[in-house]
Amino acid sequence: MYSFMNDYSEGAHPRILELLSKSNYEQNTGYGEDIHSNKAKDYIKKHLRNENVDIHFIPGGTQTNLLVISSFLRPHQCIIAAETGHVNVHETGAIEATGHKVVTVPSKDGKVTLSAIEQVLNYHTDEHMVQPKMVYISNSTELGTIYKKEELSALHQICKSKGLLLFLDGARIGSALTSKPNNLELPDIAGLVDVFYIGGTKNGALLGEALVICNQKLKEDFRYLIKQRGALMAKGFVTGIQFEALFQDNLFFELGSHANEMADKIALILKECGYSFYTEPCTNQLFPILPNSLLEKLSKDFLFSIQFKADDQNTVVRFVTSWATTLESVDALSNFFIKNSK
Amino acid sequence: MYSFMNDYSEGAHPRILELLSKSNYEQNTGYGEDIHSNKAKDYIKKHLRNENVDIHFIPGGTQTNLLVISSFLRPHQCIIAAETGHVNVHETGAIEATGHKVVTVPSKDGKVTLSAIEQVLNYHTDEHMVQPKMVYISNSTELGTIYKKEELSALHQICKSKGLLLFLDGARIGSALTSKPNNLELPDIAGLVDVFYIGGTKNGALLGEALVICNQKLKEDFRYLIKQRGALMAKGFVTGIQFEALFQDNLFFELGSHANEMADKIALILKECGYSFYTEPCTNQLFPILPNSLLEKLSKDFLFSIQFKADDQNTVVRFVTSWATTLESVDALSNFFIKNSK
Amino acid sequence: MYSFMNDYSEGAHPRILELLSKSNYEQNTGYGEDIHSNKAKDYIKKHLRNENVDIHFIPGGTQTNLLVISSFLRPHQCIIAAETGHVNVHETGAIEATGHKVVTVPSKDGKVTLSAIEQVLNYHTDEHMVQPKMVYISNSTELGTIYKKEELSALHQICKSKGLLLFLDGARIGSALTSKPNNLELPDIAGLVDVFYIGGTKNGALLGEALVICNQKLKEDFRYLIKQRGALMAKGFVTGIQFEALFQDNLFFELGSHANEMADKIALILKECGYSFYTEPCTNQLFPILPNSLLEKLSKDFLFSIQFKADDQNTVVRFVTSWATTLESVDALSNFFIKNSK
Amino acid sequence: MYSFMNDYSEGAHPRILELLSKSNYEQNTGYGEDIHSNKAKDYIKKHLRNENVDIHFIPGGTQTNLLVISSFLRPHQCIIAAETGHVNVHETGAIEATGHKVVTVPSKDGKVTLSAIEQVLNYHTDEHMVQPKMVYISNSTELGTIYKKEELSALHQICKSKGLLLFLDGARIGSALTSKPNNLELPDIAGLVDVFYIGGTKNGALLGEALVICNQKLKEDFRYLIKQRGALMAKGFVTGIQFEALFQDNLFFELGSHANEMADKIALILKECGYSFYTEPCTNQLFPILPNSLLEKLSKDFLFSIQFKADDQNTVVRFVTSWATTLESVDALSNFFIKNSK
Repeated sequence: MYSFMNDYSEGAHPRILELLSKSNYEQNTGYGEDIHSNKAKDYIKKHLRNENVDIHFIPGGTQTNLLVISSFLRPHQCIIAAETGHVNVHETGAIEATGHKVVTVPSKDGKVTLSAIEQVLNYHTDEHMVQPKMVYISNSTELGTIYKKEELSALHQICKSKGLLLFLDGARIGSALTSKPNNLELPDIAGLVDVFYIGGTKNGALLGEALVICNQKLKEDFRYLIKQRGALMAKGFVTGIQFEALFQDNLFFELGSHANEMADKIALILKECGYSFYTEPCTNQLFPILPNSLLEKLSKDFLFSIQFKADDQNTVVRFVTSWATTLESVDALSNFFIKNSK
Repeated sequence: MYSFMNDYSEGAHPRILELLSKSNYEQNTGYGEDIHSNKAKDYIKKHLRNENVDIHFIPGGTQTNLLVISSFLRPHQCIIAAETGHVNVHETGAIEATGHKVVTVPSKDGKVTLSAIEQVLNYHTDEHMVQPKMVYISNSTELGTIYKKEELSALHQICKSKGLLLFLDGARIGSALTSKPNNLELPDIAGLVDVFYIGGTKNGALLGEALVICNQKLKEDFRYLIKQRGALMAKGFVTGIQFEALFQDNLFFELGSHANEMADKIALILKECGYSFYTEPCTNQLFPILPNSLLEKLSKDFLFSIQFKADDQNTVVRFVTSWATTLESVDALSNFFIKNSK
Repeated sequence: MYSFMNDYSEGAHPRILELLSKSNYEQNTGYGEDIHSNKAKDYIKKHLRNENVDIHFIPGGTQTNLLVISSFLRPHQCIIAAETGHVNVHETGAIEATGHKVVTVPSKDGKVTLSAIEQVLNYHTDEHMVQPKMVYISNSTELGTIYKKEELSALHQICKSKGLLLFLDGARIGSALTSKPNNLELPDIAGLVDVFYIGGTKNGALLGEALVICNQKLKEDFRYLIKQRGALMAKGFVTGIQFEALFQDNLFFELGSHANEMADKIALILKECGYSFYTEPCTNQLFPILPNSLLEKLSKDFLFSIQFKADDQNTVVRFVTSWATTLESVDALSNFFIKNSK
Repeated sequence: MYSFMNDYSEGAHPRILELLSKSNYEQNTGYGEDIHSNKAKDYIKKHLRNENVDIHFIPGGTQTNLLVISSFLRPHQCIIAAETGHVNVHETGAIEATGHKVVTVPSKDGKVTLSAIEQVLNYHTDEHMVQPKMVYISNSTELGTIYKKEELSALHQICKSKGLLLFLDGARIGSALTSKPNNLELPDIAGLVDVFYIGGTKNGALLGEALVICNQKLKEDFRYLIKQRGALMAKGFVTGIQFEALFQDNLFFELGSHANEMADKIALILKECGYSFYTEPCTNQLFPILPNSLLEKLSKDFLFSIQFKADDQNTVVRFVTSWATTLESVDALSNFFIKNSK
């Protein structure tokens, strides 16, 4: 059985495990104030070409999302997110549990558009309604698409002019930044958003997201807020070491590239076999539209997820590749399609 | 420099790292529904001699505390905790952030007494005050003391008769259960409390606490609540594997015993040198009362924490040992005291 | 200037003011435990033909909504509401501020349908999403429509079979129950919903809503929750006296009838003048579709609210009548339309 | 039976009822944006000799407290209050329900001292503990005492120098400001605190507190927050009219004076009869220490509240007078003591 279910099935890249082992008996300071966490932050700042940001390591993505949103909004303020946004549908109301509404905008490709933001602003005009204060986007999105530099710049512009904060969920930023059509780099992002994170969990770490606070006004007291939400790990060095391994060289990007390459190969075959996609493939998440008749057979040897009905005969499914996806498994999947397509 | 600052300075016991490495390339189901997590739960249930509990792995202690308290109380209900309780002083208002008051009782040794509970109940009699609904205790306590079986049974009795839930924070239960004066075993605890946890972070794991829900009425929908608080890790197997390593044999208890033995040696020397203790030593946390004149010298070679003034000449300090404390460091500390005491 | 802006422009019906004056110097028990509140509850129970409910007087509607929802749901549970529901759009995120998501369903007429509920249930299937637990409806709805007995029975059925609570916001129940097409009575409602309220503010009181808890399981400790949300008024008798006046005879229904009659007259004229309505008129809120060209003229002598564009030439506006609406003002409005329509 | 239970037993001063009746049929704008609310604000500003404040009318005291505290603190921040503070003991955890801890300081007379504030600040030094950000005081206090001008100035100073907000709960400010030893006036208070309120409920209104925001930085978006907590009344003019009546002349102060005079008479007799007081009498709340043997007899004709045991033979009780307390009832109480004391 080969799994294309998600990008968090395997453990960590060996170089991460190695560094964890190597430093295992060091006596570190607790709560993320250790040497490894500091080194990791320095490495990331170099990649960002920006010394002027605050970096914090948070165990997981939902926790990072709820922490950012609840820390930077006043009680009456809300976020704007795509209907498909992770914070809207797949976090069991984590954002609302901190007191904030998620105002959604329709989105076919997982992205938030300028006109959607404007519509929300035009509608929310008085104190009887929540006040939009932050735009939440993810890159890559929940539908595998990415924001181009010009799109992110435009979002930056509208947010700045309307007094909105811009928050980029980078759970899959490794794949986004190494995607072929991508023209954004880490330093661009740090200049265009108020806060974002670099996802480790879905790009080769055991766990951990590196939260980057770019807006100076948002930096104050953030460690209090991490602690309060239960996200300040006693052994903070465990995530520090992992990001040290990922960013002391280019490992983070290599892992993203590998996942994308594997996905590209699958996408190519699928296209050659005549299948279309719900969204244009470019990252490690593929959303092909497959005939229902194929699904049972496919599921005998492959794990993947059913997304939704495309029409009566076809279904949108999801294949996900990762840093650990083997060429062997990709070949097996390719062969399946070659054999089973007309 | 030898550190006796805390029990979360080093990484993980080698057998844990080994199992993480060994299973690194397996493709696991996400969110804690993997084979390793299931095995770990089975092993723990065997140690509990109880099939009838629900077990969930949570990344950290504060998160577990806030999750338990916010999940099982209605909005108007509060917990009763010792003034020194971790939830009261060292979690940055994490409990209050979920909406619940922590009503405290004075405590010299970190424990909650029956009469303290009764006083709180007698005072909180109408709807103008919060309603006490849960008693929070920790074992070992923040002052290194432990609950004996008869004490826990008495707490169980009063909670049962008063309609209170009993929650035991076991961040340091490894040391508590392997303490010399201890007469409690895991199965006793599962029978006497409504919910408790087995701390991994402070007993040899990289991270993770095993939450055990004993009261049937509290089990429903708990995974929703874990997810909502950001504590459902995508790579749940990372904690599952660690608890598998800790409980497939007696590793968990061996690690607790080692920490206690190292602490016992230090306590013995300190007593021989004529020092007294704020609380009677029995677990891996020692609270000796040392002359102020000694502290600067001591801090040249040893890391430890200052707790509070005992009187004008003396200070209560804390030494903590762990699964990783070496005999060499203990000898060094012992020698320091032998040399520097009259 | 005549106002048809809303039903909370004037003070209270004279019989309410009279009773307030008459009892002004009595020394009442505080916090709603006074004789007048008790009498009012007894009168309402008689109207409900049901002794087996708990009644609490709450100052306002938003407060009642947030109180009910936050008291009866666990943290991971959400409500289902119409997109147009008051709790979704016009309470500044009051529900989310208590931690709960509002999952909305599309609605043309302000009502929640069975199939909409089923769709939400089919979509929310696992712990990564909030758990639907309560259906929120309002009667009359925000669009002036009402639920017929058969509709409410069907909602009751589906809620019962799916384990959902049914909550009816009755801020305008006075108008709903005295509407011509209505076939629901108070006792029906008490039998079909878990909790609802009888709105005083919009039906002749200075302030106050009578919350009726019908489901026995929801009754416990409710006064604690009222107090915690700041809704337990020291001079609780002020709302008690008002509901005493409204329900010691049929005043409450007479006031609803009057508002409806005034609205019926306006609706009739508008129909005769050839205008159509966004929703079929039947309560004290009318949503006629008027030509844009008429609006400026209309607004010289009349206050009303603009709702939204019907098309490029026409706008949906809202006229609201109340217990205090005079025949004179209705005649003035009628004359305007007779004169100004072709 | 004469009641000295509290100051919220009777309705409203006749001049308030009169103005409510007189304006009953006016068609007012909703949600507190009416002419009466605006007039009331202007009158209060005149009394404050300060145009530069924002005033909002809130239905009740607990609601005002929770609104102020939750609006002006970030999630990790707490308030400092006296152990006896209303927000700590008698609001069913309303403050914690909004996410904030109440850190208490011991207080014999209900007041918060400078040294108590300093102790809290010295203890709360890092991100593992909540961050003190606001000092909550009440004037008069829950024990009937008042802050002198020099005391409030000193609190102002320390708050300013430590970056703390100062919030004065004025539920009983009418009695405080008309107390004999008082040397504070409304303009002083507006200059010394960041936010406070002028209590109507306990000084002759049916309901309502006038919240005064003095600190410019706290003004923004406050109506959103009022709405979100359910405190923006549709018929906002109902509280507006009442404060218009209270402040268009000196009615508010006359009512406070009357309550104090009645209390003074009682205090004088009690002293003449040889009784001592738990706190020195000066406002409308008296805390005499009475022999237990007298209590049953006293309770035959008088309502009052038992506070706590003074010693085995004596009990601290509370008598409260109000704007509506009659000379007749005071004479009756006086006669009781004259007759029944040796």
